[in-house]
Amino acid sequence: MLNPGATGHLAEWEGETPSSIIFRSANGAIAEDIHGKTYLDMTSCSGASPLGSNNPVFTTRLAKAMEQETDVLPSPVSEQRQLLAGKMSVMFPDTPRVFFLRTGSCATEAAVRIARYRTGRPVILTAGFHGWHDIFQQPPWSDNPPAKDQHIQDYQYDLGILEQQLARNQGTVAGIFFTPEPSVFPPELLQEISSVARLHGVLLIVDEVLCGLRYAKGGYCRKHGVKPDIITLAKGVAQGVGLSAVAGTADAMAGADRAYLGNTYLRENRAFVAGNLTQEIFEEAKIVERLAERGSALKRQFQTSLERSGIPARVLGSDTMFDILLPSQKHGRAFAHRCLQHGIYTGYPGTYMSNASMNAAFFRALQAALELALADYRKDEDMTAQVTDASMVDYCAEAFHATEKACLSNRHHWA
Amino acid sequence: MLNPGATGHLAEWEGETPSSIIFRSANGAIAEDIHGKTYLDMTSCSGASPLGSNNPVFTTRLAKAMEQETDVLPSPVSEQRQLLAGKMSVMFPDTPRVFFLRTGSCATEAAVRIARYRTGRPVILTAGFHGWHDIFQQPPWSDNPPAKDQHIQDYQYDLGILEQQLARNQGTVAGIFFTPEPSVFPPELLQEISSVARLHGVLLIVDEVLCGLRYAKGGYCRKHGVKPDIITLAKGVAQGVGLSAVAGTADAMAGADRAYLGNTYLRENRAFVAGNLTQEIFEEAKIVERLAERGSALKRQFQTSLERSGIPARVLGSDTMFDILLPSQKHGRAFAHRCLQHGIYTGYPGTYMSNASMNAAFFRALQAALELALADYRKDEDMTAQVTDASMVDYCAEAFHATEKACLSNRHHWA
Repeated sequence: MLNPGATGHLAEWEGETPSSIIFRSANGAIAEDIHGKTYLDMTSCSGASPLGSNNPVFTTRLAKAMEQETDVLPSPVSEQRQLLAGKMSVMFPDTPRVFFLRTGSCATEAAVRIARYRTGRPVILTAGFHGWHDIFQQPPWSDNPPAKDQHIQDYQYDLGILEQQLARNQGTVAGIFFTPEPSVFPPELLQEISSVARLHGVLLIVDEVLCGLRYAKGGYCRKHGVKPDIITLAKGVAQGVGLSAVAGTADAMAGADRAYLGNTYLRENRAFVAGNLTQEIFEEAKIVERLAERGSALKRQFQTSLERSGIPARVLGSDTMFDILLPSQKHGRAFAHRCLQHGIYTGYPGTYMSNASMNAAFFRALQAALELALADYRKDEDMTAQVTDASMVDYCAEAFHATEKACLSNRHHWA
Repeated sequence: MLNPGATGHLAEWEGETPSSIIFRSANGAIAEDIHGKTYLDMTSCSGASPLGSNNPVFTTRLAKAMEQETDVLPSPVSEQRQLLAGKMSVMFPDTPRVFFLRTGSCATEAAVRIARYRTGRPVILTAGFHGWHDIFQQPPWSDNPPAKDQHIQDYQYDLGILEQQLARNQGTVAGIFFTPEPSVFPPELLQEISSVARLHGVLLIVDEVLCGLRYAKGGYCRKHGVKPDIITLAKGVAQGVGLSAVAGTADAMAGADRAYLGNTYLRENRAFVAGNLTQEIFEEAKIVERLAERGSALKRQFQTSLERSGIPARVLGSDTMFDILLPSQKHGRAFAHRCLQHGIYTGYPGTYMSNASMNAAFFRALQAALELALADYRKDEDMTAQVTDASMVDYCAEAFHATEKACLSNRHHWA
């Protein structure tokens, strides 16, 4: 039974959506809230559930393994951890040395620490979302943070700003941090930034927390021939279980030997058992291919339904992670609101992510819900407003804090 | 099978002890490494395992619950989370509003964020260990961090330094942070700091990550009549499963409504299920009382064995968490080395923590191992060296970064 008083502890932003849904259960990509309302999850649990909730193969194997394995060990160094490190070295051969943490934000903070200790320099030039920790909640991500950190500077995916920051901080830059956003930015942007990093003798750190185990086998960098010094990984490492990693070259990870990164809950052996089982299933069941295949169907469904309803919108990005662009923020919020009302769990801005459990029944339910949501949405908003470059500039600013120039100079990729 | 190549990924500090033990399994407080060597764990998995590894009641209930429950949900807001928040409001009534995270370090960083947003001020005056995140790896914890943060200032448990810092940062201090170390500092120190915080109109934040669910029912503050604005909790929240919390007054936690603290892995419903089961077991089996009872036996065993061997040493602290002081760091390291050799898992400095599984067989095994370890230790070191005030000053500096004055002015508590 839910303690109704406890609902009072919800902070506004914990609700994440205006409806403050409290979930009770989920199966595959279909979840139920405490009032029994059903939602089709467009986010794969924010990317953390590539197999889908309560995947029977995973849960059965985990339960069986835990009959033999230990839940928690006296030190963070365990046989299961070493096994998983070995697997990940093979999966990400350009960054073979692996250190684990429990969340994506912990991995991005640890990557910065490691880069700083490797180089002895403080400044990190960054673009994109890297989680909630203080160092990444600096301007422009937070308008007026109570404690400003001058060592973290956001170049907002803008090569012009990046060059200025490199000039202004000569000799003090540890690395350039970059989160791939395949819906907006082409691989050439990261390739260019990689060259800039080499030219200036600073480390290249790529935040693959979202895309590393989803976008392509071996991650975004490997797919596009970029050689990073350090990458961060989380979603997909251990199917819903909090586990993340920093992987780097032996040279870059020398920084890890000099920095303190002690983490009590690396003693939770269950998390590493889950990681090893997840990677086995990824391999056996070709999960990355399935994510692309189901994602392609998901994308097509939105495209077709939007077109058929005559709704101005653009579906952008890769099969495994895509965005839906509407004429304005107001249109976008109305769209997300109507989706939620009809049981489609999404937000605006928001990345749509497939999971391996999305089957025919899921797609039938989605089609029915989407028709109702789109019919209502048509009534809310001005349907003569079109998706323009300005819509995209606005979306990029809101979602990724990218500058107008960064957005428009990559127009060939998204237009 | 362990991939022997993977051992190469161990960073030095990941070993935590010179022996770089890789654990394979554990039961209660007895663990086994990959070579089959057995260790008696003096740390209760760094405090994270109050019930002991693979506690049959906990693992059976968790397995059974997970047959019904969902492993991962689309949003961080779940019925199980709300239930646990409700339980913790009752357990910590002075700080009834609860926000969850996955690790102790995440909780301490979030507490700082919340205090800063509540007050709009940047400076945190801090004493003691608060985990590995950047903001807490400032001087004196790190001699020369590549990125120095002037907003975090360590008063090193020293009231004189605290007063100076308050004067120097007038109008910009968000809060005073304090980690209880019952082996060294008396409750009166925190009571005094609480008065100072009130007098200066800044928040009092108490780091109960280690002691909150171990030292006494309701935590350290409640036991000693201190009313904090915010506390942090982790070890004991969910028996070995990574889960932590910031709990605060409704007023202080208003800061949480203004700060972004989004955390993907709060979607791991299993962690909240584990938290609810752990708190049920704590209540049913009176775990806090059992920790004190087993801890008292553990303490006595060390005291008796050390005395009988004529080894100069002092056992300090509470039954549930205590330290062993030796004449010098060199003596301490030799002691820990001999303990490890004979299968007693500890370090120097190090906090000894009981768990509920410590039974007669465990204590018999400990007595046998301890006799061998102490006999060897006697051979290593000069037994005429005594434990003096200087030994304690040195220990406090090493373990807690406390000043000599802070250590000696609390001499009545530990001498």
